[in-house]
This record gives sequence, structure tokens and C-alpha cells, in this order.
Amino acid sequence: MKVVITGGTGFIGRRLAQRLLQRGAVAGPDGRETAIDELVLFDLAAPRPPMAPDGRLKIITGDIADPATVRRVIDRATGTVFHFAAVVSGQAEADTDIGYRVNLDGTRAVLEACRALGTRPRLVFASSLAVYGGDMPQVIVDDTPLTPQTSYGAQKAIGEFLVNDYSRKAYVDGRALRLPTIVVRPGRPNRAASSWASSLFREPLSGAEVVCPVSRKSVMAILSPRRLVTAIERIHDLPGERFGFNRTVLLPAISATAEEMVDALRRAGGPTAVDRIRWEPDAFIQKIVDGWPRAVLAKRAESLGIHADAGIDEIVQAFIEDDLPAQKALVAAG
Amino acid sequence: MKVVITGGTGFIGRRLAQRLLQRGAVAGPDGRETAIDELVLFDLAAPRPPMAPDGRLKIITGDIADPATVRRVIDRATGTVFHFAAVVSGQAEADTDIGYRVNLDGTRAVLEACRALGTRPRLVFASSLAVYGGDMPQVIVDDTPLTPQTSYGAQKAIGEFLVNDYSRKAYVDGRALRLPTIVVRPGRPNRAASSWASSLFREPLSGAEVVCPVSRKSVMAILSPRRLVTAIERIHDLPGERFGFNRTVLLPAISATAEEMVDALRRAGGPTAVDRIRWEPDAFIQKIVDGWPRAVLAKRAESLGIHADAGIDEIVQAFIEDDLPAQKALVAAG
Repeated sequence: MKVVITGGTGFIGRRLAQRLLQRGAVAGPDGRETAIDELVLFDLAAPRPPMAPDGRLKIITGDIADPATVRRVIDRATGTVFHFAAVVSGQAEADTDIGYRVNLDGTRAVLEACRALGTRPRLVFASSLAVYGGDMPQVIVDDTPLTPQTSYGAQKAIGEFLVNDYSRKAYVDGRALRLPTIVVRPGRPNRAASSWASSLFREPLSGAEVVCPVSRKSVMAILSPRRLVTAIERIHDLPGERFGFNRTVLLPAISATAEEMVDALRRAGGPTAVDRIRWEPDAFIQKIVDGWPRAVLAKRAESLGIHADAGIDEIVQAFIEDDLPAQKALVAAG
Repeated sequence: MKVVITGGTGFIGRRLAQRLLQRGAVAGPDGRETAIDELVLFDLAAPRPPMAPDGRLKIITGDIADPATVRRVIDRATGTVFHFAAVVSGQAEADTDIGYRVNLDGTRAVLEACRALGTRPRLVFASSLAVYGGDMPQVIVDDTPLTPQTSYGAQKAIGEFLVNDYSRKAYVDGRALRLPTIVVRPGRPNRAASSWASSLFREPLSGAEVVCPVSRKSVMAILSPRRLVTAIERIHDLPGERFGFNRTVLLPAISATAEEMVDALRRAGGPTAVDRIRWEPDAFIQKIVDGWPRAVLAKRAESLGIHADAGIDEIVQAFIEDDLPAQKALVAAG
């Protein structure tokens, strides 16, 4: 069976790809563990640093919003698509056209390519807690109404409705996951308004300086990459019937202030690491972050066996074990 | 000022146009009552029967999903757009491509044309109770989560998110209205899954036979055209700030079973009228109708001065006064 990951050379795509190559299989059309013959990472650019060579791995670069390109990538051999390609929140807010093109047109292109197969492939779509905003409750629960206050959040909410509609019509066997902020992302800072939360750990622990654009009291609902990849695999493998009329699953998260993150950094890296943070408030970023949910109670995910990290220290430890050596090399390379 | 009504030759568009021509003005960009110099009805076809001649009235036919066409219609003189053009529920469910093309691409074309003006025109978008479905509460309230179970409902929910996002970014001064089933629609039956509710009154009162495709216990949340046009005008004229972060307003409605509608028909038209109904269940229609909300409690709309009809008899009486003569002529013409 062929598996496609859009946004596959991005951080989550790459991490999931490594995991799937190691496991060698996923749930197939009949629900049984099925060998992966081919794993396609579709993205704008090739992975950097390159991935370890693997006969099953294929990198394809192209435009997610071009239907013909996407149809060529998602061909008849494709049993599963993980659709992660997206323009991040800060960029989608600043550039409305690119945001709608990638996050809405791109998602439609993926859904239409799946539908054209006529085989009802599994589809996992990465949505986001950014679907909430405005007058929302203190704690987000499974049926909190969607009230996006960013273009990115609106596009993710729209994607959820599309995945639900295409699943209901049996064009795909879809599931959408509402992701909290994933911390610690390895690599370089990006234009996501949540980028600082990873930077607070990543740069200081690898010996680099970092600028934090939000106040110490800013709160984030966060989840580690390890927990996220486990959740993605689990939700992919469950039978579609388990989801009922709503194919979206709110993922669990723990809540932490920037201050609490700095405390965890101090425990892991000492005062020298903390001294590498410079606080430079950015009103544009702060406004987006303040509009996001501060806490999550994800009962449905938990009933499906998906859990948040035990605490910030677990999150930092996972980064140190999984990513710090490569991150230090990246910093050393400049 | 120029006013554009998309879907303008349809039932609601036409009714609103007549009202606006009579009133001669709407709230302008500064909120003050502003004369309407030009009223454009944009639709697939010219109005039938033709509308009374009026120097301000202009009919333009074309494709709502073609951005260039829509940009030509919504030009710099345009202060207000009422966006009602849509493929109805039954058709959008049966023909996925046409549904997404008209109801999603068409709405995006309208929003983009408004945005291109740079003048933040007022926009009123007709959404629908079809945004609810599945595991919904017995009574829909203002913040009931959106859970569409039809393509039409998904497309309307998506339209609401687009109107909110474009309003937040000050590209338009938008409002979306969640319409219940409007009863009694004049004219001929259409492919809306709700079409039978109007047919139960319209055909029998004008001397024609009618087939009812749902059971007598089927419940609808309904509102009269009179009340709807008043609601549209009122919501259009309110200052945008009144809506806060959510530009969508759930409209009020009364609930009635098909049986109760037949009782009202008997009171208005006697047993002869009731004898003109033939009951022929259609599982496709019944399933869509059963998935819709049965009751609405629209506190926000009521706080804005928008009210439902006092009862079914008021709804039937409005039809008899406003539409029955023309309807009888239509039936006589065959």
C-alpha cells in the first residue's frame, strides 16, 4: 500500500514518516495492519537535512493547491493520505490570498483527488485549536462551538467541515485532529504565532539566543511531538465507524504559561539557558496568541486512548532525547 | 448607492427587491438612510413573471462562480450586496460538484469582489438551519455547535466562517442569517428537501393537487416571507459593531408538524383543499428533513427586534394576502 503525507517534509510529516518507516505498516482498507510499499512525502521542497535513504521513501515537490499535481501524487495505489500541508497562522493572517490558496484550495484538491479514486482512502487532516477564539469558555471541550478569530483558524474549521462532508458521502474515510501547539518543534523558528513556545526551549538548550515576542503570562495548550505522532497513528488506525457523525477529534494538551516554560527550561538547562532569552513584546503575535484557547479537556480523545504529556518536564525531556543532538548541529552550522 | 442581490430573481431576492424599491433606500456606508439609485438582480435567468418596470432596476444574468463576472456586477458604486444565490439542499446533496461550485466558489467570488472594492461594503449572506444536524439538542440556540449532515449545510457553515473572517479583516461589513424553512414560498416546487412544507399550502389553496413526500409527524421550523424580509432589512441596517466577533444571527421560527400544517390548511381552505394532498413518502427527502432542527430559540435575534410569526395561521394568511392571486394565475397558466 502507498501512503502519502502532504506537508511531508515539514516537522510533523517528517516525524510521522520516520515512525511509519520504522513500523513498516498501517491499518489498510480492511482495517488490518498492511505493509507500506511506498511512502510519499509531498511538499514545496525536499527535506533538509535529507532523510536516511529508504527504498520505500519518495519525495515529490509541488503545489498543493494545483489539482492536477495532487491527483498525480494521490494515485490508485494510495490507501492513506495524511494531509498536513498548510500555511501557518502568522502567514495566513498577514497574507490572506496565500492562506486561502494553500489551506482551503489545497485541502479541496486533496479531498477531490481522494474522491476521484473511488476507493474511499483513509485521510487524516491536521486541524488546530485556532478554530476557537473570541467569546470562548475558559476550558475547551469536545463540543465547544467553533469561533475562529484568525484566517488560519477559519481555514482549519472549513477543512473540518469538508472532511466531515466528504466522509459522510463515503468519498474518503476521513478524520480531523484539532492540534494544540506542538512543543518542542525542532529546526528553525517559523511564522506560526506559536513559534516562540518551542523557541523558549530549543534555542537556549542548543546554545543559541532567542527572542520571546509575548509576555511571561501568555498561556499555551501544548503537546509533545511524541504524543502527537502516537495520536495520529492511533486515530488513523481506528475504524471510521468509531467516529460517528463527527470525524473531528480534539486532542488533549497541558496548559503552561511562558513563565512556567522558563521554569522547566531552568530545571533542564540551568540559569545559563534561561539567560539566553530576550523578551521583546510583539503586539501582532501577542494578539493572535491571546485569542487562542488556554486549556483543553479532551474527553473523547481520552476515551480513544489518546493522552497528553504528564507535564512540561516530560515534554522537555522528549526534546532532549529525540532532537537536541541534531539541533545543536544545526546551530553549529549557523 | 447601488445595491446588488445575488440570486435576485429567486423568491427571496425578488421579494426583498420589491420591498427595497418601495422603500427607496437602505442604510448606507455611514449608517444613514441612503437612496438606492440602482438595484441589480443577478441570477441565472431573468425573473418570471417579469417584475414591474422601474428605472432603478437592472437584471444581469450570469454564473455566480465566475470571479470575473461577479467583479463586473459588484463594482465601485456598490454599497450593499445581498448574497442569496445558492443551489438548494436536495440538489447540493445529489450533485456534489454543482453544490460546491455555486455554494462555496460562488460565495468566495462574491466576498473577493467585495474585498477588491476596498470600500468595505455591507454584505448579507443567507445561511440556513441546515448547518445543524446529527447529535443536536432538541432546541437550537444561538451557540449550538454547527454539525451539518448535508453538503448544503456544510457549504452554508463554511460561508458563515468566510463572512466572519472577511468581516474581521474589514474586507466587508458582513452579516450571515441562519434561515429556517421559509413558508409559504410562492411559485413552483423546487429541489429543496423542504419544498413540501410550502407545497402543503400553496398548491391546495390555488386549486392544484400536491404530493407530500414526508410523514405527517415530520417537524419543520418555519418563518414567513414577510417576517424574513423584515429581518433581512433590519439586520442589514444595524451597525456592524452590534454583532461583535460573530457576524451570524440565528433567525427565530415556529415549529409545526406536517399534520399541524394540514390543520391550518383546513381552517383556511376547508376540506376540499386538504383533499388535494396525496401522501407519497420519499426516503431520500425524509432522511434529509429528519436530520434538520425541530425547534429554535433565537434570543439574539429577538434582542435585535426580530420575531417569528405568531402561529401557522398568520403564515397562511400572509400567503393568501401577498401571493395567492398570482399563484392562482400561475396554476391557471399550467
